[in-house]
Amino acid sequence: MTHGPAPSAARIWDHCEELARCSEQPDGLTRVFLSPEQHAASELVLTWMRDAGMQARLDEIGNCIGRYDGDRAGLPCLMLGSHLDTVRDAGRYDGMLGVVAAIECVRALNERGRRLSFAVVVAGFADEEGVRFASTLLGSRAIAGTFDPAVLDRVDAKGVSMREALVQFGLDPACLARAAYRREDILAYAELHIEQGPVLEAEALPVGVVTAINGANRLAIGIGGVAGHAGTVPMSLRRDALAAAAECVLEVERRCAGVPDLVGTVGRLEVLPGATNVIPGKAQFTIDIRSPRDADRHAAVADVTQALAAIGRRRGVAVDVRPLHEGSTATCAGWLTRQLGDAIAAEGLPVRALPSGAGHDGMAMVDVTDIGMLFVRCKDGISHNPAEAIALADAEVAARVFLRFIENFRPAPS
Amino acid sequence: MTHGPAPSAARIWDHCEELARCSEQPDGLTRVFLSPEQHAASELVLTWMRDAGMQARLDEIGNCIGRYDGDRAGLPCLMLGSHLDTVRDAGRYDGMLGVVAAIECVRALNERGRRLSFAVVVAGFADEEGVRFASTLLGSRAIAGTFDPAVLDRVDAKGVSMREALVQFGLDPACLARAAYRREDILAYAELHIEQGPVLEAEALPVGVVTAINGANRLAIGIGGVAGHAGTVPMSLRRDALAAAAECVLEVERRCAGVPDLVGTVGRLEVLPGATNVIPGKAQFTIDIRSPRDADRHAAVADVTQALAAIGRRRGVAVDVRPLHEGSTATCAGWLTRQLGDAIAAEGLPVRALPSGAGHDGMAMVDVTDIGMLFVRCKDGISHNPAEAIALADAEVAARVFLRFIENFRPAPS
Repeated sequence: MTHGPAPSAARIWDHCEELARCSEQPDGLTRVFLSPEQHAASELVLTWMRDAGMQARLDEIGNCIGRYDGDRAGLPCLMLGSHLDTVRDAGRYDGMLGVVAAIECVRALNERGRRLSFAVVVAGFADEEGVRFASTLLGSRAIAGTFDPAVLDRVDAKGVSMREALVQFGLDPACLARAAYRREDILAYAELHIEQGPVLEAEALPVGVVTAINGANRLAIGIGGVAGHAGTVPMSLRRDALAAAAECVLEVERRCAGVPDLVGTVGRLEVLPGATNVIPGKAQFTIDIRSPRDADRHAAVADVTQALAAIGRRRGVAVDVRPLHEGSTATCAGWLTRQLGDAIAAEGLPVRALPSGAGHDGMAMVDVTDIGMLFVRCKDGISHNPAEAIALADAEVAARVFLRFIENFRPAPS
Repeated sequence: MTHGPAPSAARIWDHCEELARCSEQPDGLTRVFLSPEQHAASELVLTWMRDAGMQARLDEIGNCIGRYDGDRAGLPCLMLGSHLDTVRDAGRYDGMLGVVAAIECVRALNERGRRLSFAVVVAGFADEEGVRFASTLLGSRAIAGTFDPAVLDRVDAKGVSMREALVQFGLDPACLARAAYRREDILAYAELHIEQGPVLEAEALPVGVVTAINGANRLAIGIGGVAGHAGTVPMSLRRDALAAAAECVLEVERRCAGVPDLVGTVGRLEVLPGATNVIPGKAQFTIDIRSPRDADRHAAVADVTQALAAIGRRRGVAVDVRPLHEGSTATCAGWLTRQLGDAIAAEGLPVRALPSGAGHDGMAMVDVTDIGMLFVRCKDGISHNPAEAIALADAEVAARVFLRFIENFRPAPS
């Protein structure tokens, strides 16, 4: 099926290494929105895009946009992409792998002299992580036309506003709206990304197809019991805030374990006063619940909230539940996941469908077009960490699958 | 039965107030071993002892010792006492009430011109809490002859050794052994003390008789799981250190709730890394288990340790159990608790027997004589806190009971 040059895993690898050197610190990787490091990374990416046969430009928010025309000019595009910014002390694949692999796929098309019945656009988004201005998905929101101009007034840790930072970067805040694509100009958005989880590794699979980017609720829980002397208060007279919290932790685990793809986590828990010989009078903790199905998530949040109240009543402790955040599921389009699955199967691999527990640019892109994602196995599920790692062979397989998907892409049945 | 002047609750109250003014800080109560504040408090106590008809002296460790001879000189004594030192930011009854009430009982005897067939000695111990040198029960250990000379080399927060502090206080460290009583010179040791727990209050009783001062084990537990992304790791692939710890917390509670007078507490718990969106990789917590019966306590510690290991195996997390401390039960002598109970009953009150979950000087005195304790109800079970409170009426009842006990005291049946 695939003829001519294949994507080069070695070049993908080398380009990830080169991007990793565009960093605030020499002994690690941090590259935030509109920084000099992003400028350097963008220069590399634009050069690679041009080398791969694309017209390349920085758009009005700082995204790197490369366009590979179809068999005639002006065709709507299949957009491929991921982000070029990083968290602090990041790994070198989260985001970058998707940009580099997409460019490599276009290079392979170009080297074969192959033009398709649609254009291919590769987007290297300027901000997904939201590290600098505490507002995420800025690059993909600008493309999707959902960029909120109010965030231009946000300031970074040094007091520089996003507006000022754009100007310093050489961009014009007044022109941001021009970055947006019209719905009719994009046929679909597809992203290749490391899994950032352990599922593919546990099943010995190099790639998987994403069903949805999970919706999430975050809650803050406060428990008010009665502190007391660990030696003098009989068990029957206690209102132990930690014992109540422990029951809540296990309830979150129990409720979420019963439903496919639902996850629930208590990541923080503090106990007061926190002395060996004092019965805890207060406890506070967080709950993070995610699912690729909003109905499952809503049901879990409602059930857990109810169960916590019951635990409080039974134990005579006050339970306060405060919502911190809610984000809806971004569902991947069935017709896209099928085409991605077909490409995986054509490489002789089992098609593993799985949700994405982490957030991705597709959460913004879904507002302007249908989205699909290809996950690549990563080591130990570790991400947002210098220890983030992938196998070169997996990068090669993933790029082959992605190229096959691009070559065989058919727009949504209308 | 009781004739003549009764113990004065008003004087007990006033003396507790006066002692509370011997404090490091003007707006709270802190009085540590061998401090100028202890010197001032001792002067008050020695004066009150003499006023009550006793020969009074400071002994070689700084205890206030008052002796009220029996119907002839040189008789063995019933020793009454409690401690005069405090924790930092203390209440005004923990320790002091027992000293002041005992003096008040002797005053009542003396005012009636009553001499008994044994001497009465009141001891105001110089150190029970162990705040200054992190070694407890120094006063009562000196009396019991179990003072460890090695602790003389301990230094306080300012680098002053206990040896130096004794000299500064006007005492001679070389003479410490002289503070010890011979077994044949003490018939029994009896202490009046606030409960520091909620049991008597919950049962609407002003006083109770102590069965034993609980033995205690303290353990430090470390749990090693695997940290991970709260969104990307399915419930079935998690090794959540906090979920495991929560199960352990509930197991401590469950195991200890089933046995009378057994108490188990997890007072501290820390979670790492402690972020809302990260599955906890590590948790550490403490366990404090106490009981008036050593066999119950040993069984609970063994069962909990075994249950924690089973939780670790089932969840695939490492569970490390490290003993921090162990102290044996100091059992109150049956013949003394019966005489204290008789005194309570003679006041027309129900006799409630209960263990002491907190430590007391009896833990040292039990090495030289039989011990008994009378508990006084305190408000909300609060102690080691400026909010520590008792009712004046309870102090009055307790002193009447204690005086009745003294007057009717009969040495152990031999």
